[in-house]
Amino acid sequence: MRSAWRNTSSFTHFSVCVCVCVCVCVCVCLGSNYAMSNGGGGAGASISTHLLDLLEEPIPGVGTYDDFHTIDWVREKCKDRERHRKINSKKKESAWEFTKSLYDAWSGWLVVTLTGLASGALAGVIDIVADWLNDLKEGVCLSAMWFNHEQCCWDSNETTFAERDKCPQWKTWAELILGQAEGPGSYIMNYFMFTFWALSFAFLAVSLVKVFAPYACGSGIPEIKTILSGFIIRGYLGKWTLMIKTITLVLAVASGLSLGKEGPLVHVACCCGNIFSYLFPKYSKNEAKKREVLSAASAAGVSVAFGAPIGGVLFSLEEVSYYFPLKTLWRSFFAALVAAFVLRSINPFGNSRLVLFYVEYHTPWYLFELFPFILLGVFGGLWGAFFIRANIAWCRRRKSTRFGKYPVLEVITVAAITAIVAFPNPYTRQNTSELIKELFTDCGPLESSQLCQYRSQMNGSQAYPAGSDAAAAPGVYSAMWQLSLALVFKIIMTIFTFGLKVPSGLFIPSMAIGAIAGRIVGIAVEQLAYYHHDWFLFREWCEVGADCITPGLYAMVGAAACLGGVTRMTVSLVVIVFELTGGLEYIVPLMAAVMTSKWVGDAFGREGIYEAHIRLNGYPFLDAKEEFTHTTLAREVMRPRRNDPPLAVLTQDDMTLAELQNIISQTSCNGFPVIVSKESQRLVGFALRRDITIAIENARRKQEGIMLNSWVYFTQHAPTLPADSPRPLKLRSILDMSPFTVTDHTPMEIVVDIFRKLGLRQCLVTHNGRLLGIITKKDILRHMAQMANQDPESIMFN
Amino acid sequence: MRSAWRNTSSFTHFSVCVCVCVCVCVCVCLGSNYAMSNGGGGAGASISTHLLDLLEEPIPGVGTYDDFHTIDWVREKCKDRERHRKINSKKKESAWEFTKSLYDAWSGWLVVTLTGLASGALAGVIDIVADWLNDLKEGVCLSAMWFNHEQCCWDSNETTFAERDKCPQWKTWAELILGQAEGPGSYIMNYFMFTFWALSFAFLAVSLVKVFAPYACGSGIPEIKTILSGFIIRGYLGKWTLMIKTITLVLAVASGLSLGKEGPLVHVACCCGNIFSYLFPKYSKNEAKKREVLSAASAAGVSVAFGAPIGGVLFSLEEVSYYFPLKTLWRSFFAALVAAFVLRSINPFGNSRLVLFYVEYHTPWYLFELFPFILLGVFGGLWGAFFIRANIAWCRRRKSTRFGKYPVLEVITVAAITAIVAFPNPYTRQNTSELIKELFTDCGPLESSQLCQYRSQMNGSQAYPAGSDAAAAPGVYSAMWQLSLALVFKIIMTIFTFGLKVPSGLFIPSMAIGAIAGRIVGIAVEQLAYYHHDWFLFREWCEVGADCITPGLYAMVGAAACLGGVTRMTVSLVVIVFELTGGLEYIVPLMAAVMTSKWVGDAFGREGIYEAHIRLNGYPFLDAKEEFTHTTLAREVMRPRRNDPPLAVLTQDDMTLAELQNIISQTSCNGFPVIVSKESQRLVGFALRRDITIAIENARRKQEGIMLNSWVYFTQHAPTLPADSPRPLKLRSILDMSPFTVTDHTPMEIVVDIFRKLGLRQCLVTHNGRLLGIITKKDILRHMAQMANQDPESIMFN
Repeated sequence: MRSAWRNTSSFTHFSVCVCVCVCVCVCVCLGSNYAMSNGGGGAGASISTHLLDLLEEPIPGVGTYDDFHTIDWVREKCKDRERHRKINSKKKESAWEFTKSLYDAWSGWLVVTLTGLASGALAGVIDIVADWLNDLKEGVCLSAMWFNHEQCCWDSNETTFAERDKCPQWKTWAELILGQAEGPGSYIMNYFMFTFWALSFAFLAVSLVKVFAPYACGSGIPEIKTILSGFIIRGYLGKWTLMIKTITLVLAVASGLSLGKEGPLVHVACCCGNIFSYLFPKYSKNEAKKREVLSAASAAGVSVAFGAPIGGVLFSLEEVSYYFPLKTLWRSFFAALVAAFVLRSINPFGNSRLVLFYVEYHTPWYLFELFPFILLGVFGGLWGAFFIRANIAWCRRRKSTRFGKYPVLEVITVAAITAIVAFPNPYTRQNTSELIKELFTDCGPLESSQLCQYRSQMNGSQAYPAGSDAAAAPGVYSAMWQLSLALVFKIIMTIFTFGLKVPSGLFIPSMAIGAIAGRIVGIAVEQLAYYHHDWFLFREWCEVGADCITPGLYAMVGAAACLGGVTRMTVSLVVIVFELTGGLEYIVPLMAAVMTSKWVGDAFGREGIYEAHIRLNGYPFLDAKEEFTHTTLAREVMRPRRNDPPLAVLTQDDMTLAELQNIISQTSCNGFPVIVSKESQRLVGFALRRDITIAIENARRKQEGIMLNSWVYFTQHAPTLPADSPRPLKLRSILDMSPFTVTDHTPMEIVVDIFRKLGLRQCLVTHNGRLLGIITKKDILRHMAQMANQDPESIMFN
Repeated sequence: MRSAWRNTSSFTHFSVCVCVCVCVCVCVCLGSNYAMSNGGGGAGASISTHLLDLLEEPIPGVGTYDDFHTIDWVREKCKDRERHRKINSKKKESAWEFTKSLYDAWSGWLVVTLTGLASGALAGVIDIVADWLNDLKEGVCLSAMWFNHEQCCWDSNETTFAERDKCPQWKTWAELILGQAEGPGSYIMNYFMFTFWALSFAFLAVSLVKVFAPYACGSGIPEIKTILSGFIIRGYLGKWTLMIKTITLVLAVASGLSLGKEGPLVHVACCCGNIFSYLFPKYSKNEAKKREVLSAASAAGVSVAFGAPIGGVLFSLEEVSYYFPLKTLWRSFFAALVAAFVLRSINPFGNSRLVLFYVEYHTPWYLFELFPFILLGVFGGLWGAFFIRANIAWCRRRKSTRFGKYPVLEVITVAAITAIVAFPNPYTRQNTSELIKELFTDCGPLESSQLCQYRSQMNGSQAYPAGSDAAAAPGVYSAMWQLSLALVFKIIMTIFTFGLKVPSGLFIPSMAIGAIAGRIVGIAVEQLAYYHHDWFLFREWCEVGADCITPGLYAMVGAAACLGGVTRMTVSLVVIVFELTGGLEYIVPLMAAVMTSKWVGDAFGREGIYEAHIRLNGYPFLDAKEEFTHTTLAREVMRPRRNDPPLAVLTQDDMTLAELQNIISQTSCNGFPVIVSKESQRLVGFALRRDITIAIENARRKQEGIMLNSWVYFTQHAPTLPADSPRPLKLRSILDMSPFTVTDHTPMEIVVDIFRKLGLRQCLVTHNGRLLGIITKKDILRHMAQMANQDPESIMFN
């Protein structure tokens, strides 16, 4: 690591980094300006709905969505195919049209490339700045202020390898202010400055979030899951959120709070994807296509967070995405790779690796070790279940009491407690990522960590493990104590930290907790094997003096188990951790632990932390993983219920404008079925409230003679009207002629399946061809909540 | 490799292998016996369709499928949920029921574990036996007949490393029969014996396939794709197919034909999955659930074929599977891992690796090299497009002319030509997998291959590449000639071989062609860089004497490009090859080549070889990847067409049994819509032909008084009948009360989407609530063929 940085001047890196950032910023600005000129916000701008009626004049605004509404996937995809057909039919007309069609065909690749570049560059910048800020809590580099502790001392020739942390250029605050490096005074001074900086960073972070971009708080993954499932939250992935999230993420990480930057990196990458998609009308004007870019972006985000491109793609597939066609798989993979390579060329850790905690193990594992691995899995599952309950209970308290009104105070309190408690313990004082790295790393001859103070090393023998004395020295025992305290501290603080109004990821704290537990178990097993190497369990494979247990591997397995318990990820988690080690060998322990942890966690509640937060916030998210197991039929879920007023319907050709406006103003539904006549109740189509309103306004503006007693008709030809009646209003162009219908006898499990797979917004219920009622996505969510004995009103988005 | 085998006695391996095989055989037999006792074949046995009407007595046989029919995914999934609910509601009744529910919950894991074990064991056996048979063509090991050439000479202490292929124990046929090792006589003798064995193996293989299991031929992947999409081909995955395919695969590989064992291994794994699923009623009685097991099995198949568990899962996801819920992803991963570990513990290649061609490269690649890599991609795409056209043309000729009636003769002719042409050229004589290995491997000091005869090595300098003389010696030039000839030979023979009536995979021949082309390009670039190292292109990074080009990497990129051109796989292909090398570093060249090859190939035709074969055979496969881009509406596709007779419908309560039977006998459709009355045409439900027939037979057998003039009714209550009428027949229990409907105005792109995503078999078309017609999966396929200007009648399964 040392030599890597020395060989390649830091300035080269710095300049590469700056260049990439400038490019990214320019692009982001271009993208968002374009976005603003197109109407801005989250949903696409005015789109003509050609698919509805090609012969009619398109009405501007029809086919767009309001904020906090659900998109209709089927219709969006149709719109995209229509656009594609148009471009294809035109492309032979002229060279310009051909170029346009080429640009259109390539825009998918372009947008994921840009997203990958931007995510990689931002991740690199965040890594470097967070490191520097983190070291600022301890001291400064006098020779070059912009160097962090490690870089500062690399340039010094006066230090030996063993004392590589100490060099004259690096001054702690005590040295700088008091002029002395040792003694209780300087300890207190360092303690004070540590807390001071932590509080400053935390205050800055929460203030920026509160003032400029409230959406920048949290990990963002629950909201991204909801957005990808087809919900619209304007501004959640906008440029302000991106900017503030990037800045405050760095501050929050540096403040020492028990949070990570991995989850928020996914949000940052998705912001990049959203902003770049405004450069391409194919994506900016189609909510479904835009979500393909966001899926790729979230893969890129995980790719840079963990240096695991394949894991990132699987994360996007397994955890966040809703609609994931194969084309997206391939593009996600590409985006993830581009992001990973940009990050590697920035080289933020100076070790030519993508992540801080890349490890290589050299000893195989033995069948007996599956037992402690499964124990770690049980621990992970229990921790996950406990954490989800405790954190949700705390967040609910924050939401429901007046306590939630003082976010700044809360952040500062938590940051203060964290800093004050963390400082005395070296394992909590250091950066959490570095702690994980130390715990993952196996003891080798060059390791100076307290965790590696075995007798063989104390005796000066360099040849560990061949040094044959793996008995723990006092250093290991005191490290064990400190680790246990750190474990308790992390567990408590993480519960109170996740959900604060600062960017906060959960991956790193969870992994840290698991890694600490794993390392403790690993050392325990190691000592057991050392002192009882003639036990039948160890006799076979643990020869005296041989290095048969790898405590670092236990730490890694524990980290995976805890992360699995919290998020309930499976394949993607195993692949992410597999990409950290690179050995197929260790997949089996990982799988065993992750499976156990998922099963144990699921026994206490099937939701992962992200689903729990989605439900807490009441987003309309229909989970694809959850099975619908009840036997209800469609007629029991549809509205109107038994004692409700009848469904508000429109007839196709015998209503006046006044009647129509009356119906619209008296009801709050988002759409109305259109039927042949009140008597037959046979279904013709479905019209959206928003579209009707826009069409009426448009007609009033453009057509003369539209009055309150004008007839409104949805048929192809105008009905025969009395001679004195005013000009009729034709609304066929906004009528959806192919509404989805199910019969009243359809089991709800099929209805739920249709909603999930096709991404519907509503579905009409018929009996023997007559319209009976309507089922919307929210009806389904409400019904599912009822079935699970929850208060259905508590779950809706507010 | 040598030492690995020496350390661990071959007998250990052999015994492990035998044990696993015995276990597998016992399980397979158990499984298939169970299958036979359950009615055997492919579709599940008698299932009561509780979901239709829980109050009715279930009729045996209702809800099953005929051979060559399409399953209804929605209904199968409902059936499974019903079964699950039943078990769940019962499980608290007694300890026995609780055990049963536990068994049910675990059966998914059990069946994938068994499948993984069996696939890994069979792959190991196939590898070992194929190797041995392949060497039998050259000679025998006198000291131990069951050793192949390599193992035979490892036990000999008389050979040096350089001459490790020659040892006194191993006798070529010429030595054994003529008693002389050198000279034209012995060459002719060896040539003759080589051809003789090749022909014998080929004859045996094709005869076994022809007599015992005609389904065992080909690669099986097109059929597995079709089966996974919901088609039933009884016996395609049965025990006979498994047994014969395993035996003939070994023979076909050993016969030296230009084919591989990787594709058929997927078929073998799927057979194992199918057979084991009969042990578990959850899977044997539900066609949709069984396909989850098959998806996992195909992942295990690729996992053992290439030693790439993650690649296998992605292959299953991207290439073969149709319905792939996340639960299946996790189980597929597990099956793939189990299979890989069984294969590794069998250790068929004696190198502790899963595949023969595992490689590690040590030099990085340079940006300029992307140019030859993309060239290789273009070559791969062109080869893929050419191969697909030529092979399909040849297969169509075989199908349509009488030439196809002599499969044995054809196989023997091709085998004879292959053997006769292959023998003189060392690169075609050797096993194709070994050829690929040799081409992938970089030249090192220990490589004795002709391809590595650089001047530095001729001078006796061991330190290549530091030997600084990378100029090619005559050996390399003659190797280049031989490779070029081998390339032409492989290209021609592969076209005629794929589609023969023996098990034949396409992965290895395609990879071999790409690897040869890649290696030739690689050596050319290397020599260019050597002789022109002061060109501006090479100056920067190619210092004199440095080893800046890795020809082995070119071979690997070429192999990926050619495989990509033929199969049009993307992510899974890159991941599979990535798992061969293990370095993230080389993903970018691979992606560049695979993307280019896909684009170039797609320009000539969007179908991969498997889709082309599916279409050639007329399987009803609705490809999820192909976009439906036309603007037709549902009413243009539905039957009846304009001039057709009206749709055969049943009325809900005014038909006699005679009328019903009349309608059934006069039409050939598989199901009939049930309407309220002929006048209103309002839809009530849908009844399947098979179910009606079974229900009538059942009623005749069990209920008295059912006569030809009995009234048939589908309503809840019997209609009021005249006093003298015979006992009516109630058929409500077989009526599907929730048929899928679309309106006549629905764009076909939405209809196709619904069919794909929900796995429908048919869909009814209505207009304003009245039934108009029906669209089946075959109607859609026929319409798509018409739109693509193909003869719609040629594509249907025959």
